[in-house]
Amino acid sequence: MKIFSSLALAGALAALAAPAMAQFQKPEDAVKYRQAAFTVMGAHFGRLGAMANGRVPFDARVAAENAAVVESLSKLPWAAFGTGTQMAPSRSLPHVWAEQARFRAGAERMQVEVVKLSAAANSGDLQALRAAFGPAAQSCKACHDDFRRD
Amino acid sequence: MKIFSSLALAGALAALAAPAMAQFQKPEDAVKYRQAAFTVMGAHFGRLGAMANGRVPFDARVAAENAAVVESLSKLPWAAFGTGTQMAPSRSLPHVWAEQARFRAGAERMQVEVVKLSAAANSGDLQALRAAFGPAAQSCKACHDDFRRD
Repeated sequence: MKIFSSLALAGALAALAAPAMAQFQKPEDAVKYRQAAFTVMGAHFGRLGAMANGRVPFDARVAAENAAVVESLSKLPWAAFGTGTQMAPSRSLPHVWAEQARFRAGAERMQVEVVKLSAAANSGDLQALRAAFGPAAQSCKACHDDFRRD
Repeated sequence: MKIFSSLALAGALAALAAPAMAQFQKPEDAVKYRQAAFTVMGAHFGRLGAMANGRVPFDARVAAENAAVVESLSKLPWAAFGTGTQMAPSRSLPHVWAEQARFRAGAERMQVEVVKLSAAANSGDLQALRAAFGPAAQSCKACHDDFRRD
């Protein structure tokens, strides 16, 4: 049952991600786009982390707005990891394309955690934000560890 | 009255943009962030243009989704043009900081046109998309011409 529900979730997320599917003129354009999406997402994720970790004062409105940006951006990079884009220089490791299913699963895991993070941020409760931030950060790190050059 | 309503609009947009206001550790971080936001926005804007100009078939759902990304991203870069960020290498011209009011007005004009573009895309009407795309593209170009190095 767990496997089935994971598959159903993966399918639902793939459908969500599909609108962002795009043609890039050159592999370099895809790399630039996906790196840009991660850059913007990372900046807003970092602001949530600063609040979750007490480095800046918690502001529920700001947290919700940053989480909304993270959630929107979390859907975008994946369409730019298409076949052929591995030819362009980037920090992505060949595993991204050699182990597509595992890579996609990691991407979907992150999107699930980010949805939870956004819900927590929207609750206006710092404890909820703290509780959701760790797993979300872990879902980022898991792919960075496995699929990105140091 | 026109001036008053423009000011009111500018105020409203400034309030919208404020949540994205952020501290960047270094001017280079701000430059990287704002360039990334423009890169993502530009990619999705280009997809709308391809539909508006008939280079790719019109798909109302895809148009609406691309427009939503453009609208979200259009709010983000401005917080990263803070004082001090002009020290970091970028294509931004000194006018950005020397003529803040004019630069902000251009940024706000773009956001207004993008809201209209998004409404047009959501109407599902290709003619409406076409009509809104030109002024939106012009609002991008106006700032590029005046505030960005070739």
